[in-house]
Amino acid sequence: MAHNRSDVLAHAVTLLDTHGLAALTMRRLGAELGVQPSAIYHHFASKQALLAAVADEILARGARPRTAAEWPDQLREVCSELRHAMLACTDGADVVATVWAFGLGAEAPVKEMEAILTSADVPDELVAVASRTLVHYVFGHAFEEQTARQAVSLGAVERSLESLPDFDLGLALVIDGLRARLHGAA
Amino acid sequence: MAHNRSDVLAHAVTLLDTHGLAALTMRRLGAELGVQPSAIYHHFASKQALLAAVADEILARGARPRTAAEWPDQLREVCSELRHAMLACTDGADVVATVWAFGLGAEAPVKEMEAILTSADVPDELVAVASRTLVHYVFGHAFEEQTARQAVSLGAVERSLESLPDFDLGLALVIDGLRARLHGAA
Repeated sequence: MAHNRSDVLAHAVTLLDTHGLAALTMRRLGAELGVQPSAIYHHFASKQALLAAVADEILARGARPRTAAEWPDQLREVCSELRHAMLACTDGADVVATVWAFGLGAEAPVKEMEAILTSADVPDELVAVASRTLVHYVFGHAFEEQTARQAVSLGAVERSLESLPDFDLGLALVIDGLRARLHGAA
Repeated sequence: MAHNRSDVLAHAVTLLDTHGLAALTMRRLGAELGVQPSAIYHHFASKQALLAAVADEILARGARPRTAAEWPDQLREVCSELRHAMLACTDGADVVATVWAFGLGAEAPVKEMEAILTSADVPDELVAVASRTLVHYVFGHAFEEQTARQAVSLGAVERSLESLPDFDLGLALVIDGLRARLHGAA
């Protein structure tokens, strides 16, 4: 039975969400779809290429309408969407952060933040640093939150989850730093 | 041949640094030391306990003297030490961030930042958020840098490494946010 690329990608996301990143192999994906691994490689040239497509699919599924008018709120929308998209899929933070580090995908959030800051007349040298700082913060927070929740849910560790809802507070701190820098430069 | 706990821990760090996190299993560690896995479990009750000890050893090996007098520079010392300690061992960022998320170890940097901010009379509600925001930023940046450098070094991906040296710039942005918050509250 033949599968097109989007069937294979959809099953890869389901496999990741159900069994975690360690289970997402070309061999297992082929076995679950009843095809040889070579049939998977026909659509995705490598494991990295598959992971990149999975990361972009995780982000696409998390897309929400944009409503904010001012740049600080626009940045919050992008960061919040990114966080929720990653948390919605098992090991999503690990996959998206890894693919972004590989330079193979998951570039939309940083590119959107760069566009927001450029439109707000933020100096070029600050646009790249601010966008990268925000995405590093989001990845760091989401990785902690997802790792902690998954491990507690599996009974692997016991820890309090009380500190985790501070995402917006930390995000506001980074945005305040950017605002201070702009006022200082003005 | 009997091994004490520190021998086993030292070999675990070497195994991690040489072959990466996927290779660090109780079975392999036992095989390389010429003992049954049960001998490893005698010193470390679980894989999570071993990982926690490895993370704390990575941080201990990266310890540097403290010289800064003012809180912003003191925070920079802690964050910079944490980053360098993680980057010095293969998959160090992944291991340290995971253990911290488990709540099983790697707590020294956050505790030290909390102490610095408390000594600087930062309001309690900001101490925890600021320390967590800084550590999330450091983890996010170090995870990208290490993942990118390791993948490029293995020939697994091709990407520019030019953006990676911006660690201090992003850190300064977060610290500026904290400074702005303190001035605003004063």
